[in-house]
Amino acid sequence: MKNNAMSVAKKLLQKTVPLAPKTYTAYAPANIALCKYWGKRNTALNLPINDSLSISLGKKGTHTTVEPIEGLKDIIFLNHQPVLKTDITYHYITQHLHLFRQCFGQQAFRVISHNTIATAAGLASSASGFAALTQAIIGSYGLSLPQSSHSILARLGSGSACRSIGYGFMWWQAGTRLDGQDSFATPLDCQWPTLQVGILTITTQKKHISSREGMQHTTNTSILYPRWPQEAAKHLQAIKAAIKQQDFKTFGEQVEQNALTFHATMLASWPPLCYWTPDTLQHIQSVWRARENGVKVYLTMDAGPNLKLLFESNQVKAIKQIWPNLDIIQPFVSI
Amino acid sequence: MKNNAMSVAKKLLQKTVPLAPKTYTAYAPANIALCKYWGKRNTALNLPINDSLSISLGKKGTHTTVEPIEGLKDIIFLNHQPVLKTDITYHYITQHLHLFRQCFGQQAFRVISHNTIATAAGLASSASGFAALTQAIIGSYGLSLPQSSHSILARLGSGSACRSIGYGFMWWQAGTRLDGQDSFATPLDCQWPTLQVGILTITTQKKHISSREGMQHTTNTSILYPRWPQEAAKHLQAIKAAIKQQDFKTFGEQVEQNALTFHATMLASWPPLCYWTPDTLQHIQSVWRARENGVKVYLTMDAGPNLKLLFESNQVKAIKQIWPNLDIIQPFVSI
Repeated sequence: MKNNAMSVAKKLLQKTVPLAPKTYTAYAPANIALCKYWGKRNTALNLPINDSLSISLGKKGTHTTVEPIEGLKDIIFLNHQPVLKTDITYHYITQHLHLFRQCFGQQAFRVISHNTIATAAGLASSASGFAALTQAIIGSYGLSLPQSSHSILARLGSGSACRSIGYGFMWWQAGTRLDGQDSFATPLDCQWPTLQVGILTITTQKKHISSREGMQHTTNTSILYPRWPQEAAKHLQAIKAAIKQQDFKTFGEQVEQNALTFHATMLASWPPLCYWTPDTLQHIQSVWRARENGVKVYLTMDAGPNLKLLFESNQVKAIKQIWPNLDIIQPFVSI
Repeated sequence: MKNNAMSVAKKLLQKTVPLAPKTYTAYAPANIALCKYWGKRNTALNLPINDSLSISLGKKGTHTTVEPIEGLKDIIFLNHQPVLKTDITYHYITQHLHLFRQCFGQQAFRVISHNTIATAAGLASSASGFAALTQAIIGSYGLSLPQSSHSILARLGSGSACRSIGYGFMWWQAGTRLDGQDSFATPLDCQWPTLQVGILTITTQKKHISSREGMQHTTNTSILYPRWPQEAAKHLQAIKAAIKQQDFKTFGEQVEQNALTFHATMLASWPPLCYWTPDTLQHIQSVWRARENGVKVYLTMDAGPNLKLLFESNQVKAIKQIWPNLDIIQPFVSI
């Protein structure tokens, strides 16, 4: 059987018995990759080339309600705005619902989704979006599925969504199977209560190149990409070890180097790809300056212009003096 | 014999007969690397890991006068300012004079050097500086030496200076000899009269990390550096072929990708290294935007915040509309 999203979903869903669909609301946190997912071994199934590791953002994420409705067409609202049927987002969301409908029969839904984090600005809204949609539809049908299936189904919508089905540190193993049944995220059995994540929003404008496109472009054209998988694997090992030992310095250094290597790889694409704005660079340099001045802070960035700062609670005072408007999240406290 | 700068210079100079030193003025153009020199196989001799290729900047460069004086200590003026004996620049210049004095006997000099291009801001002033100093001291002693020796002696002062001893496209072959006698620059036998170089000066502030230090830091710590030599070799081949065919599109693409890969490599160092300012990034992005709008322009940057634009004469009008203050050089016309 050909391994496409429909066949993989069918395999997962065929053993479960659905109830009549009902209105159901789910929430999924956004997640920030500490070791990035960049490059796919299978684009149809969003199977990654390398393992990745993220931290979920507590109350920052997506609330999604699915409501069974009459008719043939889904109706979708995102952040209080109707999504046009010609919009690519509409296409992705209905495609995701088809994964379930192919097994449980035709059924249209009203999907009402609301992000508590900026949309499509490299703040992982598509991750929390597809994770919440997946959980909502599973809830609507009352399906009884293991967490790994939740993660795999979310991944079929958007790769990094597979990490948004849980809290704390989430480790997405790339897996080796062609059908991706071994490619899902699991939580690390490790808390770090003093760890803080600061969101430094430079702009909430929608980015001009989606992560999906940027990733494809980088793997296809970047002359530095061939080093990425092996370097990311080293970062992952080091970050996991640092988490275990609560060694913040090593943790921060490895996370930041992973992010900068990821952006460096894009810069060596052709045409060149850079998600930074001049303001992004200014803030990157202020993080470096803060560190030179003794503040224990590191940065990471996803495929977008915004920064995420990592620090521990004993640095909050110093951090707030430099970035008074920083949105601070305590991933292990504010769940 | 140990291969250090003194022994290498001695080998080159021992067959030539010096006249009594006299006051002599020389000029050397700055050069902009189209395929960058980044990484040394021998730091004492400034022997590079990879071949590089540059374009000399005509009348932008360094004028240097050396004047034999009484006494034991050199007196040095740079851009009308005396250089203190405690300054690292003083140290490098006197060291360079020692290469000659070890053969021709003790002699102090007054060195008066003047750049027509900003100093130490990634505009290659150290290249033209050491090339002009080398030519001036060779002229002062009336030495008869082949061009390759001029280039090698300049290299001992500052690596990229070996490319500033001529005009047009200069190709620096890395060579393989331990003493570096095969590592010097020669002009490509190729003119490109329509080619223009625009200097977009973002800042003339002295950079916080010299090229020397930045190069060492990158080769020592960048996890992407291992790909640099092979990618630079490919760029060099492609750029040389494009010059031969006067294929501006390929030329520009390869030059720009080489520059961005070079900066990407620095970004993946630890601590991270970035010579850009927010304004640099803004101008990089305006080059990309101009190109999207049909303007045939490409960029390169050395280890500093300033941009160099490459275009042909038929684009000058469009270019001037976007960057009215651009300093435009015609490397094959204004010599």
